[in-house]
Amino acid sequence: MERILSFVDANKEKYLGELKEFLAIPSVSSQSAHNADTRRCAEWVAAQMRTVGMNNVQIFETPGHPIVYSEWLGAPGAPTVLFYGHYDVQPVDPVNLWTSPPFESTIRDGDLYARGSADDKGQIYIHFKAIEAYTKNGAPLPVNIKMLIEGEEEVGSANLEDFVKGHKDLLKADLVLISDSSMFAKGVPSVCYGLRGLAYMEVEVEGPNTDLHSGSFGGSVHNPVQALSEMIASLHDKNGRVTVKGFYNDVRSLTKAERSAFRKLPWNDKSYAKKLGVRQLYGEKGFTTLERLWARPTLECNGIWGGYTGEGAKTVLPSKAFAKISMRLVPDQTSAQAAKLFEKHFLKMAPKTVSVKVRALHGGEAAITPIDSPGVKAAVAALQKGFGKKPLYQREGGSIPIVVQFKNILGLDTVLLGFGLPDENAHAPDEHINLDNFFGGIRTSVHFYNELPAFWKAGGAGKKKK
Amino acid sequence: MERILSFVDANKEKYLGELKEFLAIPSVSSQSAHNADTRRCAEWVAAQMRTVGMNNVQIFETPGHPIVYSEWLGAPGAPTVLFYGHYDVQPVDPVNLWTSPPFESTIRDGDLYARGSADDKGQIYIHFKAIEAYTKNGAPLPVNIKMLIEGEEEVGSANLEDFVKGHKDLLKADLVLISDSSMFAKGVPSVCYGLRGLAYMEVEVEGPNTDLHSGSFGGSVHNPVQALSEMIASLHDKNGRVTVKGFYNDVRSLTKAERSAFRKLPWNDKSYAKKLGVRQLYGEKGFTTLERLWARPTLECNGIWGGYTGEGAKTVLPSKAFAKISMRLVPDQTSAQAAKLFEKHFLKMAPKTVSVKVRALHGGEAAITPIDSPGVKAAVAALQKGFGKKPLYQREGGSIPIVVQFKNILGLDTVLLGFGLPDENAHAPDEHINLDNFFGGIRTSVHFYNELPAFWKAGGAGKKKK
Repeated sequence: MERILSFVDANKEKYLGELKEFLAIPSVSSQSAHNADTRRCAEWVAAQMRTVGMNNVQIFETPGHPIVYSEWLGAPGAPTVLFYGHYDVQPVDPVNLWTSPPFESTIRDGDLYARGSADDKGQIYIHFKAIEAYTKNGAPLPVNIKMLIEGEEEVGSANLEDFVKGHKDLLKADLVLISDSSMFAKGVPSVCYGLRGLAYMEVEVEGPNTDLHSGSFGGSVHNPVQALSEMIASLHDKNGRVTVKGFYNDVRSLTKAERSAFRKLPWNDKSYAKKLGVRQLYGEKGFTTLERLWARPTLECNGIWGGYTGEGAKTVLPSKAFAKISMRLVPDQTSAQAAKLFEKHFLKMAPKTVSVKVRALHGGEAAITPIDSPGVKAAVAALQKGFGKKPLYQREGGSIPIVVQFKNILGLDTVLLGFGLPDENAHAPDEHINLDNFFGGIRTSVHFYNELPAFWKAGGAGKKKK
Repeated sequence: MERILSFVDANKEKYLGELKEFLAIPSVSSQSAHNADTRRCAEWVAAQMRTVGMNNVQIFETPGHPIVYSEWLGAPGAPTVLFYGHYDVQPVDPVNLWTSPPFESTIRDGDLYARGSADDKGQIYIHFKAIEAYTKNGAPLPVNIKMLIEGEEEVGSANLEDFVKGHKDLLKADLVLISDSSMFAKGVPSVCYGLRGLAYMEVEVEGPNTDLHSGSFGGSVHNPVQALSEMIASLHDKNGRVTVKGFYNDVRSLTKAERSAFRKLPWNDKSYAKKLGVRQLYGEKGFTTLERLWARPTLECNGIWGGYTGEGAKTVLPSKAFAKISMRLVPDQTSAQAAKLFEKHFLKMAPKTVSVKVRALHGGEAAITPIDSPGVKAAVAALQKGFGKKPLYQREGGSIPIVVQFKNILGLDTVLLGFGLPDENAHAPDEHINLDNFFGGIRTSVHFYNELPAFWKAGGAGKKKK
């Protein structure tokens, strides 16, 4: 290990040079003018894979941008990691807001600025170098690795699901590893072990069968905007709890260990509220803000509309009002069940004065990789060694569809080992990655591959497989 | 009187011929292609005024279409009626939905079809003929009459207010008479003696200072759509009463006579609900539907919007939500006071989790001409004689801005003597007027001018003047 880590330290300058080359390719997946660049980038990734010692490197065509695959399977009996990342990047507009050109890497104050530096080229590159540190030093990798690097993450990964479904054998593995997220804060290495799911609904409330004059008819019928407001208002009780019947039935409670882990994270409700511009936070009573954000289900109105919404006044008593309402779900809620409960509840509470329709738009499942699972334990051990600091545990309130797909199609849990920071402008001008985290990321990845087999064995590998 | 009424009966065919001429002029005020027609129509009105014996006939230019004025002031000591009407008409589109050409009067089943037949040329013409029935028979009119016929009612009467303000002396009178509305139903002659006022507000609820990802942030802040819904929901109590503090303080109670008068109108909640397509009506407990529509103040949401309102799903936790909320007012509420009370109430109930703004957009006052006032009494007596049937009393839930202007600028109450019917398609294809009502209208108008002086005297004329 010492030799391997010394190799990493000795090659820092070389790494930066090579990374700049990778970041110079404008692989903007959403802009067809960059299609040739995006393909060139896939080829760069394939070449880099060969360089670092990966085998069976393949560029798979898709109806969109290509998927690059490679593997190193020289550790029989050791677990197999499926590493996922993406080589495509966000557009750079508005380009005039960039301090330095987005495709010319520039280092300022210990940060490297370029489109893709954090999301996700920089973080893929971390793993290339961790792998190379083994292979270039005559050391076999302690684990088997399969790399799956796509070029359409920034445009919705439209062709990934089909690819995964069509290559189940090729992608067979023991766990998924993704480095495409952030640690909790600067100097606070963390491992993200849970994501929330989603059930997204649209509701329609119809009062009178046509728009009416609010003077001639106001006072005789239930205004659908008012009725919808009353129904929405009733979806939370005075403790901020969702009132949908049965909503909390399948919610997996936070363990003592998790609650205690969240409390260790540096967090300040006041400064969070200040940043968001609110005088007071809001949410389910009895839980901290981070618990509410990550481990409790919520119900949000994503949109509402009805009647006259233009400039000035129009005295209409509208016929219909609409809302988009979504629920964030946690294990062991399911999207289908939440949608069903919501629909039943919303229809049942509709007053006789209006007609109500409910439609489920789409959903996704929550995901959790327990903090006592081998993958998370290995990540924790690796972060501690890579950053010289005990890492903390976090979850994320949003969903990552690909994580759910890997679970559904391949039966695999995912470890999210993010080396970015929340304020590194992933989708904005002046995207950057902190170089301490970048080099710490390489060290951590070297350790992760080294730590995993022991934790895997101790965790009783077979039991965790599907 | 007998001679005068016989004259009316004897001239029915002539009236129809002349009315057809009036209705043949396409005085569509909103379409500049018809500007010459609209002017020609003003000239036709002026000529007709001269024909029926009116004096001082003048066409006043305005920045828009001309206003036609005339007077007959030969009844010293008798009250002066300011008759208001409009000679412009709505567009005829979609013209292919007309059974017969809109500017060629056609009689079918006792109804005369043409654009303007009910709104308002036919109803102006009724008064021309009532006046003529006196003047052509050597009988002096029992009242003084001033006629003010504008050409921009269908486009918002933009130049009328300035004209009235600039001609206060010319327009000096004792009461305003308007025939531009409908009786309650076929065979149910009625007099409309009250209109509601309006205070129109816009509210803004701001939560976080920017749109947020509903996954990453859902559970930490009060969603402004939810907060707005909660606030709107709280604006009515479970009895359908508006909760704005002080809202009902200035409401003039319905008298026993009024409640009893409304109960005499043919009305059926079930068929009203069926027509509007609702299973159940809604409104303030303790009042009938007509009482709620006409004599009780209401609060309606005219529009609501916030967050994502497009197709499909967007997982946004919006920064802001908005609503347009208006109050219909009754005597003796004022628009300014209602706006003030609403603003105070809405701001006060805002939770600390959001910021709220309230803006008054516009307002107008309620109007009432008491049922025991001389004008209304004369109208009732005239309708009884004109239609051979005791008329009923009604109010209207909407506002008529010109009525408020006459009250504010000239200090005059208005009597609304409508000879149309609610289903005569005033602004739609196949507009028509029922010929029984048309001829009944002429007889009623003859009687109104005859009845007014006695009621006026009995009512203590001087007291009513301003």
